[in-house]
Amino acid sequence: MNGKQKVIKNLILDVDGVLTTGQFLYTKDGKLAKVFGPHDNDGVKLISKLINVCAISADKRGFEITEKRVAVDMGLKLNLVSESTRLSWLQENFDLSESAYVGDGIYDAMIFEHVAYSIAPANAFYLARNKADFVTSAKSGEGAVAEACLHLMEKFLEVPRSLKNIL
Amino acid sequence: MNGKQKVIKNLILDVDGVLTTGQFLYTKDGKLAKVFGPHDNDGVKLISKLINVCAISADKRGFEITEKRVAVDMGLKLNLVSESTRLSWLQENFDLSESAYVGDGIYDAMIFEHVAYSIAPANAFYLARNKADFVTSAKSGEGAVAEACLHLMEKFLEVPRSLKNIL
Amino acid sequence: MNGKQKVIKNLILDVDGVLTTGQFLYTKDGKLAKVFGPHDNDGVKLISKLINVCAISADKRGFEITEKRVAVDMGLKLNLVSESTRLSWLQENFDLSESAYVGDGIYDAMIFEHVAYSIAPANAFYLARNKADFVTSAKSGEGAVAEACLHLMEKFLEVPRSLKNIL
Amino acid sequence: MNGKQKVIKNLILDVDGVLTTGQFLYTKDGKLAKVFGPHDNDGVKLISKLINVCAISADKRGFEITEKRVAVDMGLKLNLVSESTRLSWLQENFDLSESAYVGDGIYDAMIFEHVAYSIAPANAFYLARNKADFVTSAKSGEGAVAEACLHLMEKFLEVPRSLKNIL
Repeated sequence: MNGKQKVIKNLILDVDGVLTTGQFLYTKDGKLAKVFGPHDNDGVKLISKLINVCAISADKRGFEITEKRVAVDMGLKLNLVSESTRLSWLQENFDLSESAYVGDGIYDAMIFEHVAYSIAPANAFYLARNKADFVTSAKSGEGAVAEACLHLMEKFLEVPRSLKNIL
Repeated sequence: MNGKQKVIKNLILDVDGVLTTGQFLYTKDGKLAKVFGPHDNDGVKLISKLINVCAISADKRGFEITEKRVAVDMGLKLNLVSESTRLSWLQENFDLSESAYVGDGIYDAMIFEHVAYSIAPANAFYLARNKADFVTSAKSGEGAVAEACLHLMEKFLEVPRSLKNIL
Repeated sequence: MNGKQKVIKNLILDVDGVLTTGQFLYTKDGKLAKVFGPHDNDGVKLISKLINVCAISADKRGFEITEKRVAVDMGLKLNLVSESTRLSWLQENFDLSESAYVGDGIYDAMIFEHVAYSIAPANAFYLARNKADFVTSAKSGEGAVAEACLHLMEKFLEVPRSLKNIL
Repeated sequence: MNGKQKVIKNLILDVDGVLTTGQFLYTKDGKLAKVFGPHDNDGVKLISKLINVCAISADKRGFEITEKRVAVDMGLKLNLVSESTRLSWLQENFDLSESAYVGDGIYDAMIFEHVAYSIAPANAFYLARNKADFVTSAKSGEGAVAEACLHLMEKFLEVPRSLKNIL
């Protein structure tokens, strides 16, 4: 196809259910932990050499957990953006016609039609899965983002020879 | 069908194995944590605009965990009701002919025949799955309640236009 | 069949990978937690009205966790028995020709041929699954023991009318 | 086949996604826990009677967790080796033509072509799965390493009679 004719300059990642299983471990004191998966950090590092990657989350109560993993340990730009303002926030901060977006939830599905390319993990909520341009074979928290990164590299990006022997 | 002729005014949710995976993380000090899933809070908020939603749990030892997630963070009415008294408690507190019920266990299966509409998550105990009016494609702790909410809205409820563009 | 002609008086449960997912949550301080599943406590309570139920575990480092869930909270007899002495310990303490055994591991497979009836969860190690008389459709930590209990009741036990309406 | 003509003297295990599910439980304070699975310790003990077994990990932040489970509790030699230096480190420390390697990630796939025999768990990243000589039917953290050990014993090793009755 002429997929390579689309220009993708940004990759925007929802966090819960994309970089995590979407699940929350609750104790009597509240949200204790989230479950992050393998491979995603490797995939993000590879595609970060080619395009801008950032993350957004609507989870206020678990934001400190998200921050520790995504911002501090993975080194990604991260913003707390509520579901109701997500689309307008994205439109203000990105040229969505040059952006890929990975999401899994009811409200992500509504964003999919506004971006250049939308991806849902295998275990996304069915509304998101149905509307995504691409559904990964991996579930979230099991490498879905790594698969999304490699898929985008293959489909849209000029991959330098030094990275090609990895793929 | 004439499904819309049934009037559903209440949605009653069992908690463990419905809003959670049904699993308990035990340390040497006892029940430490339960695993709550994605999307369910979104689904509950949507259907709460149309009908009454509440939760019941029979788990005494883990009730503080349940309370923190379901009552405090999700804002649902929550009652501790033992399995042996569950049916009579429900009959006293609800018109079950106008109530939908989501459950997953051995004793939930016995309640199913007394309610207007019964739903079991994909991973419910087989007795519950066999007797349910509807089995979600999602497992509990992976969006089963969100799917149940949207299924009920589609099948039984008058959805205002403002919500329709979400579905 | 003439299955009911076998007399089952004991149900012996391995713990890890039978009443749990078999997984250990490790922190830097060691084994923090195990994951116990839904329905199993209900199934055990039902069959305990008819036969003797007990549990054995070979997990020394996690024994306090096991004890809290299985002995204290579920009220089962529990013994710490190493894998190497398991068969002889069982032979000394039970008439194995009247005992059903649920196990999932490499060494459990060797015990299966010595008991009246052997059961493995769906996710048991393949050697155990291959040698078991019955493999549950549920995985361990997801109701395998509850399913095993109901299977034994149906196949071998005289179920009083009061319990029949549950099944 | 003439598989038994290859001589396997070492089994080298990647840790995350091989001996664990590959997932990290994050709290706001960082990586709290990893999930280790059943059977693997049994499989490793059996094959350790025949060949040299060791483990490597690239996870700096979670190394104390890995050390506690793999080095202290399982008694395996363990080295922290970054992904970028992994191949050269392996070549310096092992005769790779006599070594089997179990890995699951993007960078493991590049090591596979340098070893005598490569194994990936069922849930490995697809690049690793595609390039492995053998893919276990079990997922990592659910007995993949135990299955790998028994597979290697059957395919390459002279198993003494005392072990044969286990298999």
